[in-house]
Amino acid sequence: MCNSASHTHDHDHDHDHSHVSVVENIMNQNDLLARHNQKLLDASGIFAINIMASPGAGKTSVILKIIEELSDRYKIAVIEGDTAPVTIDADKIVAAGVPATQINTGGNCHLDAHMMMHGLDALDLKGVDLLIVENVGNLVCPAGVALGTHANVVIASIPEGDDKPYKYPNIYRGIDVILMNKIDLLPYVDFDMDYFVTGLEMLNPGLTSFPVSAKTSEGIDGFAGWLEARILEKRAA
Amino acid sequence: MCNSASHTHDHDHDHDHSHVSVVENIMNQNDLLARHNQKLLDASGIFAINIMASPGAGKTSVILKIIEELSDRYKIAVIEGDTAPVTIDADKIVAAGVPATQINTGGNCHLDAHMMMHGLDALDLKGVDLLIVENVGNLVCPAGVALGTHANVVIASIPEGDDKPYKYPNIYRGIDVILMNKIDLLPYVDFDMDYFVTGLEMLNPGLTSFPVSAKTSEGIDGFAGWLEARILEKRAA
Repeated sequence: MCNSASHTHDHDHDHDHSHVSVVENIMNQNDLLARHNQKLLDASGIFAINIMASPGAGKTSVILKIIEELSDRYKIAVIEGDTAPVTIDADKIVAAGVPATQINTGGNCHLDAHMMMHGLDALDLKGVDLLIVENVGNLVCPAGVALGTHANVVIASIPEGDDKPYKYPNIYRGIDVILMNKIDLLPYVDFDMDYFVTGLEMLNPGLTSFPVSAKTSEGIDGFAGWLEARILEKRAA
Repeated sequence: MCNSASHTHDHDHDHDHSHVSVVENIMNQNDLLARHNQKLLDASGIFAINIMASPGAGKTSVILKIIEELSDRYKIAVIEGDTAPVTIDADKIVAAGVPATQINTGGNCHLDAHMMMHGLDALDLKGVDLLIVENVGNLVCPAGVALGTHANVVIASIPEGDDKPYKYPNIYRGIDVILMNKIDLLPYVDFDMDYFVTGLEMLNPGLTSFPVSAKTSEGIDGFAGWLEARILEKRAA
């Protein structure tokens, strides 16, 4: 069961008390590990984001553009979450000159704080300013699963359509930034940005948003500026 | 845990025998219910498909085109799987003159045979030739979860990119048909069809495939013809 609400409550608790206590222990452990991951990041002076999106929304392409924008001034590292043991995405990051480690979830549909601990162990954190975690491509399961990162980012893709906030609401709640990617395709698809934003605003009022194209680089500077401000805050802390 | 292999084996069986027997019972129950769903469909002379895809790949749009192609000659019904209690997709199906029932999974990331039973209960099956089940938008979790349908169909979306079979292999194994949708966007995105098909062939040799556009209707007749042949086989049985 990949119920995105399961990190807070188990719906079976009226029926089976022994079962519910096990689920709650697992979930508390995830939050405990997530807190420890964040302590390690804070102690290392690293600002970390968790990027979530459907398959093919452009997570890796956006990360490559952020590397282009920021890697001359800041040290970046990447944790790649994948359901399969292929290193297509991690290879692209490494080819861009940035250290990356891949977590193969073995088919599991999202990263969790335990997997994130393995990722942190596998990276040399010394001097890193920005850690980018690319979650498994999934618009349902990663919602609300804490990893210990400082900000949750969702990438929506224009060709996915403008109704996604209405149909997959949980992923948009409690996130800090949304990117609307592939705006270069707006002329060729039916996408009503007002309808999309109206749905978002019901779920997450005032959410910071950046319309971008990882293909043309349009709008990427805005998100890079947002990241840079957080990196500098973390340095000053 | 939404491990797509979990319907066959539980990986913890070395550690906790009582736990594993519970998991196996649940999974056997899914397959048992799926078999009964198929018996009911067979007894009713209905050919049924399970459509799986990422969010926004065009599941509902393809279904609407199939309705356009076939509903003058065959009676169609639709079961809509959604994670949220919005009826956007079901409303579109009903507006096209076809009965539809929606299963709200309550955040769960895929349909199962138990939910499918509820869907079958909610529909008037009398005279129906073709039942289309639209699964939750997810390229990971629905893989290998039997519902009782006769064929599993995946819709890939061109703007999602050509590397999906390599990165989300489980969903392509054991399916019967793949549609490559949104081919009208091929001129505007980087998509190497040979690379995509090579990945598919490794996972599912000889898989029946239809490049289509639910926007322009290109290629839809091919898939409609495939469905029609199965409907007629079922009638003749």
